[in-house]
Amino acid sequence: MRKRSSTKLMAISPELRNSKMERILNCAEKEFAARGYSATPLHKIASGARVNQALISYYFGSKEKLYQAVFLRRGLELTRERLRLLDELEKRTSGPPTVEDLIRSFLVPAISMMYEGSDRRDFLRLQARLQNEPKEITEKLRAIVYDEATRRYIDSFKKALPRVDPKAIVWRVVMMIGAYLYIVSDANRLRQLSNGLCDADEQEETIRQISTFLTSGFRYP
Amino acid sequence: MRKRSSTKLMAISPELRNSKMERILNCAEKEFAARGYSATPLHKIASGARVNQALISYYFGSKEKLYQAVFLRRGLELTRERLRLLDELEKRTSGPPTVEDLIRSFLVPAISMMYEGSDRRDFLRLQARLQNEPKEITEKLRAIVYDEATRRYIDSFKKALPRVDPKAIVWRVVMMIGAYLYIVSDANRLRQLSNGLCDADEQEETIRQISTFLTSGFRYP
Repeated sequence: MRKRSSTKLMAISPELRNSKMERILNCAEKEFAARGYSATPLHKIASGARVNQALISYYFGSKEKLYQAVFLRRGLELTRERLRLLDELEKRTSGPPTVEDLIRSFLVPAISMMYEGSDRRDFLRLQARLQNEPKEITEKLRAIVYDEATRRYIDSFKKALPRVDPKAIVWRVVMMIGAYLYIVSDANRLRQLSNGLCDADEQEETIRQISTFLTSGFRYP
Repeated sequence: MRKRSSTKLMAISPELRNSKMERILNCAEKEFAARGYSATPLHKIASGARVNQALISYYFGSKEKLYQAVFLRRGLELTRERLRLLDELEKRTSGPPTVEDLIRSFLVPAISMMYEGSDRRDFLRLQARLQNEPKEITEKLRAIVYDEATRRYIDSFKKALPRVDPKAIVWRVVMMIGAYLYIVSDANRLRQLSNGLCDADEQEETIRQISTFLTSGFRYP
Protein backbone atom coordinates (compact mmCIF):
# COMPACT_ATOMS: atom_id res chain seq x y z
CA MET A 1 0.00 0.00 0.00
CA ARG A 2 1.36 3.41 -0.89
CA LYS A 3 1.54 5.77 2.03
CA ARG A 4 -0.05 9.12 1.33
CA SER A 5 2.40 11.82 2.20
CA SER A 6 -0.11 13.85 4.20
CA THR A 7 2.48 15.96 5.97
CA LYS A 8 4.30 17.09 2.83
CA LEU A 9 4.21 20.85 2.75
CA MET A 10 2.81 22.65 -0.21
CA ALA A 11 4.69 25.73 -1.29
CA ILE A 12 3.40 26.69 -4.70
CA SER A 13 5.85 28.96 -6.42
CA PRO A 14 4.36 32.26 -7.66
CA GLU A 15 4.74 31.41 -11.34
CA LEU A 16 2.62 28.27 -10.90
CA ARG A 17 -0.26 30.05 -9.20
CA ASN A 18 -3.21 31.02 -11.35
CA SER A 19 -5.66 33.81 -10.53
CA LYS A 20 -8.21 31.51 -8.91
CA MET A 21 -5.52 30.06 -6.66
CA GLU A 22 -4.46 33.56 -5.68
CA ARG A 23 -8.06 34.46 -4.91
CA ILE A 24 -8.44 31.37 -2.75
CA LEU A 25 -5.18 32.10 -0.93
CA ASN A 26 -6.09 35.75 -0.32
CA CYS A 27 -9.49 34.86 0.96
CA ALA A 28 -8.21 32.01 3.14
CA GLU A 29 -5.56 34.31 4.57
CA LYS A 30 -8.19 36.88 5.52
CA GLU A 31 -10.53 34.30 7.08
CA PHE A 32 -7.83 32.37 8.97
CA ALA A 33 -6.41 35.67 10.25
CA ALA A 34 -9.79 36.88 11.46
CA ARG A 35 -11.18 33.71 12.97
CA GLY A 36 -8.33 31.23 13.36
CA TYR A 37 -7.84 27.84 11.77
CA SER A 38 -10.46 25.79 13.61
CA ALA A 39 -13.29 28.30 13.37
CA THR A 40 -12.93 28.84 9.61
CA PRO A 41 -14.99 26.46 7.45
CA LEU A 42 -13.85 25.82 3.89
CA HIS A 43 -17.24 26.81 2.44
CA LYS A 44 -16.74 30.31 3.86
CA ILE A 45 -13.45 30.60 1.98
CA ALA A 46 -15.05 29.17 -1.17
CA SER A 47 -17.87 31.69 -1.14
CA GLY A 48 -15.49 34.58 -0.39
CA ALA A 49 -13.25 33.55 -3.29
CA ARG A 50 -16.27 32.91 -5.57
CA VAL A 51 -15.17 29.35 -6.35
CA ASN A 52 -16.63 25.92 -5.86
CA GLN A 53 -15.45 24.26 -2.66
CA ALA A 54 -14.37 21.22 -4.71
CA LEU A 55 -11.87 23.42 -6.53
CA ILE A 56 -10.17 24.24 -3.21
CA SER A 57 -9.80 20.53 -2.55
CA TYR A 58 -8.56 19.98 -6.09
CA TYR A 59 -5.88 22.67 -5.81
CA PHE A 60 -4.88 22.34 -2.18
CA GLY A 61 -6.06 18.93 -0.94
CA SER A 62 -7.42 19.79 2.50
CA LYS A 63 -8.02 22.65 4.91
CA GLU A 64 -4.75 21.90 6.63
CA LYS A 65 -2.82 22.03 3.36
CA LEU A 66 -4.57 25.22 2.37
CA TYR A 67 -3.51 26.76 5.69
CA GLN A 68 0.06 25.62 5.01
CA ALA A 69 0.02 27.11 1.52
CA VAL A 70 -1.30 30.41 2.91
CA PHE A 71 1.36 30.53 5.59
CA LEU A 72 4.21 29.53 3.30
CA ARG A 73 3.33 32.08 0.61
CA ARG A 74 4.04 35.15 2.75
CA GLY A 75 6.18 33.49 5.40
CA LEU A 76 8.83 32.41 2.92
CA GLU A 77 8.71 35.86 1.31
CA LEU A 78 9.42 37.40 4.74
CA THR A 79 12.24 34.96 5.45
CA ARG A 80 13.86 35.47 2.05
CA GLU A 81 13.80 39.21 2.52
CA ARG A 82 15.39 38.93 5.98
CA LEU A 83 18.12 36.67 4.64
CA ARG A 84 18.73 38.95 1.68
CA LEU A 85 19.21 41.93 3.99
CA LEU A 86 21.44 39.91 6.30
CA ASP A 87 23.58 38.78 3.34
CA GLU A 88 23.92 42.39 2.26
CA LEU A 89 25.00 43.45 5.74
CA GLU A 90 27.57 40.67 5.94
CA LYS A 91 29.05 41.45 2.52
CA ARG A 92 29.37 45.11 3.35
CA THR A 93 32.98 46.22 3.35
CA SER A 94 32.57 48.88 6.05
CA GLY A 95 32.62 46.34 8.89
CA PRO A 96 30.43 43.63 10.44
CA PRO A 97 26.75 44.35 11.13
CA THR A 98 25.98 46.22 14.34
CA VAL A 99 23.20 45.25 16.72
CA GLU A 100 21.06 48.03 15.35
CA ASP A 101 21.66 46.91 11.74
CA LEU A 102 20.60 43.39 12.67
CA ILE A 103 17.46 44.52 14.47
CA ARG A 104 16.37 46.82 11.67
CA SER A 105 16.96 44.21 8.98
CA PHE A 106 14.94 41.69 10.99
CA LEU A 107 12.07 44.11 11.65
CA VAL A 108 11.77 46.07 8.43
CA PRO A 109 10.50 43.23 6.17
CA ALA A 110 7.75 42.44 8.72
CA ILE A 111 6.85 45.96 9.80
CA SER A 112 6.58 47.12 6.19
CA MET A 113 3.81 44.53 5.72
CA MET A 114 1.66 46.68 8.03
CA TYR A 115 1.75 49.52 5.57
CA GLU A 116 1.95 48.02 2.12
CA GLY A 117 -1.56 46.75 1.64
CA SER A 118 -4.27 44.93 3.47
CA ASP A 119 -3.41 41.44 2.21
CA ARG A 120 -0.06 41.52 3.92
CA ARG A 121 -1.64 42.91 7.06
CA ASP A 122 -3.80 39.77 7.05
CA PHE A 123 -0.64 37.70 7.09
CA LEU A 124 0.72 39.59 10.10
CA ARG A 125 -2.51 38.88 11.95
CA LEU A 126 -2.26 35.23 10.94
CA GLN A 127 1.31 35.21 12.21
CA ALA A 128 0.38 36.89 15.49
CA ARG A 129 -2.17 34.21 16.29
CA LEU A 130 0.16 31.35 15.40
CA GLN A 131 0.87 30.48 19.04
CA ASN A 132 -2.84 29.89 19.53
CA GLU A 133 -3.39 27.62 16.57
CA PRO A 134 -3.26 23.81 16.80
CA LYS A 135 0.38 22.94 17.55
CA GLU A 136 0.35 19.87 15.30
CA ILE A 137 -0.21 22.18 12.33
CA THR A 138 1.87 25.19 13.25
CA GLU A 139 5.01 23.95 14.97
CA LYS A 140 6.50 22.23 11.94
CA LEU A 141 5.36 25.04 9.67
CA ARG A 142 6.92 27.72 11.85
CA ALA A 143 10.15 25.76 12.05
CA ILE A 144 10.32 25.40 8.26
CA VAL A 145 9.54 29.04 7.58
CA TYR A 146 11.49 30.79 10.32
CA ASP A 147 14.07 28.68 12.10
CA GLU A 148 16.92 28.82 9.62
CA ALA A 149 16.78 32.60 9.30
CA THR A 150 16.25 33.17 13.02
CA ARG A 151 19.24 30.95 13.86
CA ARG A 152 21.40 32.91 11.43
CA TYR A 153 20.29 36.09 13.19
CA ILE A 154 21.13 34.54 16.58
CA ASP A 155 24.64 33.76 15.33
CA SER A 156 25.08 37.27 13.97
CA PHE A 157 23.93 38.80 17.26
CA LYS A 158 26.46 36.61 19.07
CA LYS A 159 29.22 37.95 16.83
CA ALA A 160 28.06 41.52 17.27
CA LEU A 161 27.90 41.09 21.06
CA PRO A 162 30.84 38.84 21.93
CA ARG A 163 30.76 39.71 25.63
CA VAL A 164 27.06 38.92 26.13
CA ASP A 165 26.18 35.44 27.42
CA PRO A 166 25.17 33.42 24.30
CA LYS A 167 22.10 32.11 26.16
CA ALA A 168 20.93 35.65 26.85
CA ILE A 169 21.14 36.32 23.10
CA VAL A 170 18.52 33.62 22.44
CA TRP A 171 16.26 35.04 25.16
CA ARG A 172 16.59 38.48 23.63
CA VAL A 173 15.82 37.30 20.09
CA VAL A 174 12.65 35.61 21.36
CA MET A 175 11.64 38.78 23.25
CA MET A 176 12.34 40.85 20.14
CA ILE A 177 9.89 38.67 18.21
CA GLY A 178 7.27 38.94 20.98
CA ALA A 179 7.62 42.71 21.25
CA TYR A 180 7.29 43.50 17.55
CA LEU A 181 4.48 40.98 16.95
CA TYR A 182 2.47 42.53 19.78
CA ILE A 183 2.84 45.99 18.27
CA VAL A 184 1.97 44.96 14.71
CA SER A 185 -0.96 42.77 15.69
CA ASP A 186 -2.74 45.34 17.83
CA ALA A 187 -1.67 48.94 17.31
CA ASN A 188 -4.86 49.91 19.05
CA ARG A 189 -3.33 49.09 22.43
CA LEU A 190 -0.80 51.84 21.93
CA ARG A 191 -3.45 54.42 21.11
CA GLN A 192 -5.59 53.38 24.05
CA LEU A 193 -2.83 53.47 26.68
CA SER A 194 -1.49 56.79 25.42
CA ASN A 195 -4.95 58.40 25.16
CA GLY A 196 -4.42 58.78 21.44
CA LEU A 197 -0.97 60.40 21.64
CA CYS A 198 0.89 57.42 20.17
CA ASP A 199 0.06 55.27 17.23
CA ALA A 200 1.82 53.05 14.74
CA ASP A 201 0.49 54.70 11.60
CA GLU A 202 3.87 55.98 10.47
CA GLN A 203 6.28 53.29 9.36
CA GLU A 204 9.62 54.99 10.03
CA GLU A 205 8.52 56.13 13.51
CA THR A 206 7.31 52.61 14.35
CA ILE A 207 10.62 51.09 13.31
CA ARG A 208 12.54 53.75 15.23
CA GLN A 209 10.56 53.24 18.45
CA ILE A 210 10.93 49.47 18.32
CA SER A 211 14.55 49.33 17.20
CA THR A 212 15.94 51.86 19.69
CA PHE A 213 14.28 50.02 22.59
CA LEU A 214 15.47 46.62 21.41
CA THR A 215 18.98 47.77 20.51
CA SER A 216 19.45 49.09 24.01
CA GLY A 217 18.04 45.86 25.47
CA PHE A 218 20.35 43.68 23.39
CA ARG A 219 23.42 45.67 24.41
CA TYR A 220 22.95 45.04 28.13
CA PRO A 221 26.17 43.33 29.22
CA MET B 1 -39.60 48.02 28.32
CA ARG B 2 -36.70 47.23 30.61
CA LYS B 3 -33.42 46.98 28.83
CA ARG B 4 -31.43 43.89 29.75
CA SER B 5 -28.02 44.96 30.88
CA SER B 6 -26.23 42.43 28.69
CA THR B 7 -22.86 44.13 28.91
CA LYS B 8 -22.73 44.29 32.72
CA LEU B 9 -19.60 42.52 33.78
CA MET B 10 -19.76 39.71 36.24
CA ALA B 11 -17.01 39.62 38.81
CA ILE B 12 -18.09 37.18 41.48
CA SER B 13 -16.12 37.75 44.62
CA PRO B 14 -14.32 34.67 45.94
CA GLU B 15 -16.47 34.37 49.08
CA LEU B 16 -19.62 34.13 46.94
CA ARG B 17 -18.30 31.33 44.74
CA ASN B 18 -19.32 27.80 45.62
CA SER B 19 -17.40 24.69 44.64
CA LYS B 20 -19.48 24.00 41.53
CA MET B 21 -18.89 27.55 40.32
CA GLU B 22 -15.17 27.14 40.88
CA ARG B 23 -15.23 23.88 38.95
CA ILE B 24 -17.07 25.54 36.06
CA LEU B 25 -14.65 28.49 36.07
CA ASN B 26 -11.58 26.21 36.15
CA CYS B 27 -12.88 24.08 33.37
CA ALA B 28 -13.96 27.05 31.24
CA GLU B 29 -10.56 28.64 31.75
CA LYS B 30 -8.83 25.49 30.53
CA GLU B 31 -11.10 25.10 27.49
CA PHE B 32 -11.09 28.77 26.46
CA ALA B 33 -7.30 28.82 26.85
CA ALA B 34 -6.84 25.73 24.70
CA ARG B 35 -9.34 26.42 21.95
CA GLY B 36 -10.36 30.05 22.14
CA TYR B 37 -13.74 31.59 22.81
CA SER B 38 -15.54 30.80 19.56
CA ALA B 39 -14.42 27.19 19.24
CA THR B 40 -15.42 26.23 22.80
CA PRO B 41 -18.99 24.96 23.15
CA LEU B 42 -20.70 25.27 26.56
CA HIS B 43 -21.54 21.55 26.63
CA LYS B 44 -17.82 20.77 26.57
CA ILE B 45 -17.32 22.92 29.67
CA ALA B 46 -20.37 21.36 31.33
CA SER B 47 -19.13 17.83 30.80
CA GLY B 48 -15.60 18.73 31.91
CA ALA B 49 -16.97 20.31 35.10
CA ARG B 50 -19.44 17.44 35.61
CA VAL B 51 -22.44 19.78 35.80
CA ASN B 52 -25.61 20.22 33.82
CA GLN B 53 -25.30 22.84 31.09
CA ALA B 54 -28.38 24.59 32.49
CA LEU B 55 -26.49 25.22 35.72
CA ILE B 56 -23.85 27.20 33.80
CA SER B 57 -26.60 29.37 32.36
CA TYR B 58 -28.17 29.71 35.81
CA TYR B 59 -24.92 30.85 37.43
CA PHE B 60 -23.35 32.84 34.62
CA GLY B 61 -26.09 33.71 32.13
CA SER B 62 -24.33 33.09 28.80
CA LYS B 63 -21.09 31.93 27.26
CA GLU B 64 -19.96 35.54 26.94
CA LYS B 65 -20.62 36.23 30.61
CA LEU B 66 -18.88 33.02 31.61
CA TYR B 67 -15.83 34.12 29.61
CA GLN B 68 -15.95 37.48 31.37
CA ALA B 69 -16.18 35.81 34.77
CA VAL B 70 -13.21 33.57 33.93
CA PHE B 71 -11.11 36.50 32.77
CA LEU B 72 -12.04 38.76 35.66
CA ARG B 73 -11.28 36.13 38.30
CA ARG B 74 -7.54 35.91 37.60
CA GLY B 75 -7.13 39.21 35.75
CA LEU B 76 -8.27 41.27 38.73
CA GLU B 77 -6.04 39.18 41.01
CA LEU B 78 -3.06 39.99 38.76
CA THR B 79 -3.92 43.68 38.67
CA ARG B 80 -4.42 43.90 42.43
CA GLU B 81 -1.04 42.27 43.02
CA ARG B 82 0.70 44.69 40.62
CA LEU B 83 -0.92 47.67 42.31
CA ARG B 84 -0.04 46.35 45.77
CA LEU B 85 3.62 46.03 44.77
CA LEU B 86 3.59 49.49 43.16
CA ASP B 87 2.06 51.01 46.32
CA GLU B 88 4.78 49.35 48.38
CA LEU B 89 7.50 50.73 46.11
CA GLU B 90 6.05 54.22 46.26
CA LYS B 91 5.71 54.21 50.04
CA ARG B 92 9.28 53.06 50.49
CA THR B 93 11.39 55.62 52.30
CA SER B 94 14.64 54.80 50.50
CA GLY B 95 13.70 56.74 47.36
CA PRO B 96 11.36 56.53 44.37
CA PRO B 97 11.10 53.26 42.41
CA THR B 98 13.79 52.61 39.81
CA VAL B 99 13.07 51.35 36.31
CA GLU B 100 14.17 47.89 37.35
CA ASP B 101 11.89 47.94 40.44
CA LEU B 102 8.96 48.88 38.22
CA ILE B 103 9.65 46.19 35.64
CA ARG B 104 10.07 43.46 38.23
CA SER B 105 6.93 44.43 40.11
CA PHE B 106 4.99 44.40 36.84
CA LEU B 107 6.39 41.05 35.71
CA VAL B 108 6.60 39.02 38.91
CA PRO B 109 2.85 38.64 39.55
CA ALA B 110 2.35 37.35 35.98
CA ILE B 111 5.51 35.27 35.62
CA SER B 112 4.88 33.55 38.94
CA MET B 113 1.60 32.26 37.48
CA MET B 114 3.70 30.08 35.17
CA TYR B 115 5.11 28.20 38.12
CA GLU B 116 2.45 28.13 40.82
CA GLY B 117 0.02 25.62 39.42
CA SER B 118 -1.61 24.62 36.22
CA ASP B 119 -4.84 26.59 36.68
CA ARG B 120 -2.96 29.87 36.61
CA ARG B 121 -0.98 28.72 33.59
CA ASP B 122 -4.32 28.31 31.86
CA PHE B 123 -5.05 31.95 32.58
CA LEU B 124 -1.74 33.04 31.05
CA ARG B 125 -2.59 31.13 27.90
CA LEU B 126 -6.03 32.72 27.88
CA GLN B 127 -4.37 36.10 28.29
CA ALA B 128 -1.86 35.44 25.51
CA ARG B 129 -4.62 34.73 23.01
CA LEU B 130 -6.68 37.76 24.00
CA GLN B 131 -5.66 39.75 20.92
CA ASN B 132 -7.15 37.00 18.76
CA GLU B 133 -10.50 36.75 20.48
CA PRO B 134 -13.59 38.67 19.29
CA LYS B 135 -12.83 42.34 19.95
CA GLU B 136 -16.39 43.13 21.05
CA ILE B 137 -15.87 40.80 24.00
CA THR B 138 -12.27 41.43 24.90
CA GLU B 139 -11.57 45.13 24.41
CA LYS B 140 -13.82 46.35 27.18
CA LEU B 141 -12.78 43.51 29.43
CA ARG B 142 -9.09 44.19 28.93
CA ALA B 143 -9.61 47.89 29.58
CA ILE B 144 -11.46 47.18 32.83
CA VAL B 145 -8.93 44.67 34.08
CA TYR B 146 -5.65 46.27 33.02
CA ASP B 147 -5.87 49.89 31.98
CA GLU B 148 -5.88 51.57 35.38
CA ALA B 149 -2.84 49.66 36.61
CA THR B 150 -0.95 49.96 33.32
CA ARG B 151 -1.54 53.72 33.25
CA ARG B 152 -0.22 54.00 36.79
CA TYR B 153 2.88 52.11 35.66
CA ILE B 154 3.27 54.43 32.67
CA ASP B 155 3.19 57.42 35.02
CA SER B 156 5.75 55.82 37.33
CA PHE B 157 8.06 55.05 34.41
CA LYS B 158 7.78 58.68 33.31
CA LYS B 159 8.84 59.80 36.79
CA ALA B 160 11.71 57.32 36.88
CA LEU B 161 12.88 58.41 33.41
CA PRO B 162 12.27 62.16 33.28
CA ARG B 163 14.57 62.66 30.28
CA VAL B 164 12.90 60.04 28.08
CA ASP B 165 10.21 61.23 25.65
CA PRO B 166 6.85 60.45 27.37
CA LYS B 167 5.53 58.94 24.13
CA ALA B 168 8.45 56.52 23.98
CA ILE B 169 7.51 55.37 27.51
CA VAL B 170 4.11 54.21 26.25
CA TRP B 171 5.72 52.37 23.32
CA ARG B 172 8.10 50.67 25.71
CA VAL B 173 5.37 49.61 28.12
CA VAL B 174 3.44 48.03 25.24
CA MET B 175 6.60 46.24 24.04
CA MET B 176 7.28 45.04 27.58
CA ILE B 177 3.83 43.44 27.63
CA GLY B 178 4.39 41.84 24.22
CA ALA B 179 7.81 40.49 25.14
CA TYR B 180 6.81 38.86 28.42
CA LEU B 181 3.53 37.46 27.07
CA TYR B 182 5.39 35.82 24.21
CA ILE B 183 7.80 34.14 26.60
CA VAL B 184 5.14 32.92 29.03
CA SER B 185 2.77 31.70 26.36
CA ASP B 186 5.29 29.59 24.45
CA ALA B 187 8.44 28.72 26.34
CA ASN B 188 8.98 26.05 23.74
CA ARG B 189 10.18 28.64 21.23
CA LEU B 190 13.13 29.38 23.48
CA ARG B 191 14.12 25.73 23.78
CA GLN B 192 13.79 25.18 20.05
CA LEU B 193 15.85 28.19 18.95
CA SER B 194 18.57 27.49 21.51
CA ASN B 195 18.70 23.74 20.72
CA GLY B 196 17.63 23.02 24.27
CA LEU B 197 20.19 25.26 25.99
CA CYS B 198 17.66 27.81 27.23
CA ASP B 199 14.32 27.30 28.85
CA ALA B 200 11.96 29.11 31.14
CA ASP B 201 11.62 26.40 33.76
CA GLU B 202 13.33 28.37 36.50
CA GLN B 203 11.36 31.35 37.76
CA GLU B 204 14.17 33.57 39.03
CA GLU B 205 16.24 33.07 35.85
CA THR B 206 13.22 33.86 33.67
CA ILE B 207 12.55 37.08 35.56
CA ARG B 208 16.23 38.03 35.42
CA GLN B 209 16.52 37.45 31.65
CA ILE B 210 13.38 39.44 30.91
CA SER B 211 13.95 42.27 33.36
CA THR B 212 17.60 42.97 32.46
CA PHE B 213 16.72 43.18 28.76
CA LEU B 214 13.72 45.42 29.36
CA THR B 215 15.45 47.63 31.93
CA SER B 216 18.19 48.38 29.45
CA GLY B 217 15.61 49.05 26.72
CA PHE B 218 13.63 51.44 28.91
CA ARG B 219 16.73 53.41 29.85
CA TYR B 220 17.61 54.32 26.25
CA PRO B 221 17.67 58.12 26.21
